[in-house]
Amino acid sequence: MPLDATLDTASLSGGSLLLAWQLKGKRVLVVGGGNVASGRIESVLVADALVTLIAPRSGLHKMTEQLLETTDRMTYHDRVFAGPPDLEGVDMVLTAIDDVDTSRAICELCRARRIPVNVADIPPLCDFYFGSQIRTGPLQIMISTNGQSPKLAALLSKRIEAVLPENVGDAVTKVGQLRGKLRERAPGVGGEVGKRRMRWMVDVCTAWDLEDLAMLDDTMMEKLLNDGWEYNRVPRVQEVAGERKANGTAAARPPAAKPANPFLGHIAGFLLGVACTAIALLARRA
Amino acid sequence: MPLDATLDTASLSGGSLLLAWQLKGKRVLVVGGGNVASGRIESVLVADALVTLIAPRSGLHKMTEQLLETTDRMTYHDRVFAGPPDLEGVDMVLTAIDDVDTSRAICELCRARRIPVNVADIPPLCDFYFGSQIRTGPLQIMISTNGQSPKLAALLSKRIEAVLPENVGDAVTKVGQLRGKLRERAPGVGGEVGKRRMRWMVDVCTAWDLEDLAMLDDTMMEKLLNDGWEYNRVPRVQEVAGERKANGTAAARPPAAKPANPFLGHIAGFLLGVACTAIALLARRA
Repeated sequence: MPLDATLDTASLSGGSLLLAWQLKGKRVLVVGGGNVASGRIESVLVADALVTLIAPRSGLHKMTEQLLETTDRMTYHDRVFAGPPDLEGVDMVLTAIDDVDTSRAICELCRARRIPVNVADIPPLCDFYFGSQIRTGPLQIMISTNGQSPKLAALLSKRIEAVLPENVGDAVTKVGQLRGKLRERAPGVGGEVGKRRMRWMVDVCTAWDLEDLAMLDDTMMEKLLNDGWEYNRVPRVQEVAGERKANGTAAARPPAAKPANPFLGHIAGFLLGVACTAIALLARRA
Repeated sequence: MPLDATLDTASLSGGSLLLAWQLKGKRVLVVGGGNVASGRIESVLVADALVTLIAPRSGLHKMTEQLLETTDRMTYHDRVFAGPPDLEGVDMVLTAIDDVDTSRAICELCRARRIPVNVADIPPLCDFYFGSQIRTGPLQIMISTNGQSPKLAALLSKRIEAVLPENVGDAVTKVGQLRGKLRERAPGVGGEVGKRRMRWMVDVCTAWDLEDLAMLDDTMMEKLLNDGWEYNRVPRVQEVAGERKANGTAAARPPAAKPANPFLGHIAGFLLGVACTAIALLARRA
């Protein structure tokens, strides 16, 4: 499962290198206007890319038309791919067209220029593959079956999404903010203070539930840093949230439709079973 | 959560582009011999890369020494980075050294040559980030918090790993094999047959449990294709597995410590609740 502490050389193959590619301010060329291209455009816009789209308007997907109207990060050319000049200043190329020969030609041009390229549906022409993705706030999860079964990747993605705590995105955002505040309070790159910062953040994330981390606001973060970081300890949630915890938790937490802990399901089921049976039997007895 | 059908332009930012980078036969230069470098080497070996390692032997991590002994895909130079010639023929560069100036210099050389580069711990010098990873067979999962909280990524990774069915890696492998056999039986790229193949595979993956897919062997695959694909239907597991299903399932499935479906927990709990209460109440009545 995770890359193991004990070494198993035999298992060191057959995979991909899973990465979070950075596209802020980079230019991505998308060739094609259909369903697949539309999904690609959305994925790269999420990563703050600038997009150039080349595709005849007649074949544009509805969602792509909407994106063209609503975002200022897209440049659109109503035509087919026209050769090398289209690749100038481009940092990544994604094609999703039916024309295999053009796809192959674009791939070759990209490789000669060391521009990373993905040609939809033709794996040998891809420097990288996409996988099933989950995104909530700053949290992103990718599920890849390395081309074995996109459908299973999609099914697993749904299964994983169902067990993520409802407000996990908020928890990630809040922990990011807390780290920022801590770095302001105790600045410096690397060294002793860097290590102490990292250790304390790990302690906080381990001691607190995701649900409680998601509740953090400015006041709570200040208190956590004043009473925790300054004394090199991790206060309990109740200390930091005070009254809010008693009131707040119930309000902040969504109903247990997606239990954080799978055993909650067992317990809830058990109690329901007890209740139903008791009612049924007692009713019969009465 | 997944990139939505309804468009929310405001949410289209702040993320990365999650990718499965292909490294088969590509050369990755790793600069540095410590703990972080060691993890990087393992990750790229998994993706079938050829690795060049530049790092003084005195600082080599134990695991890296082991890898140097056991794999023939590594070339080792017992020295520090020596400048541009070290980048010749290199497809990706990963540095994990304490010397910030050298890191910066390597990054600049890479960018001038359009070689993707990751400098550990210095995000602005990274074309891509790593995230927490899960791997089992051909299934790989990456959890990225986009730099907000590596610790939360690690915690979520454990939580996700705990809900994955025990033999999910086998299921992915078997479905990949089934697809291969189907492609042999009904060859051709794209077109009607391609669509029909894809639909049938989706139907099989939807109709069968992961646990049953993981049980598939050559005989069962043949039967599934003969009785299923040829008649454009999806046989039930029992039809294909025959006796094996009755005997096999119980043996093949691990104990239900990790329920495949979160609702199984509710149902099991409910039944247990019914049983306990019935026994308790009926015992009292007797």
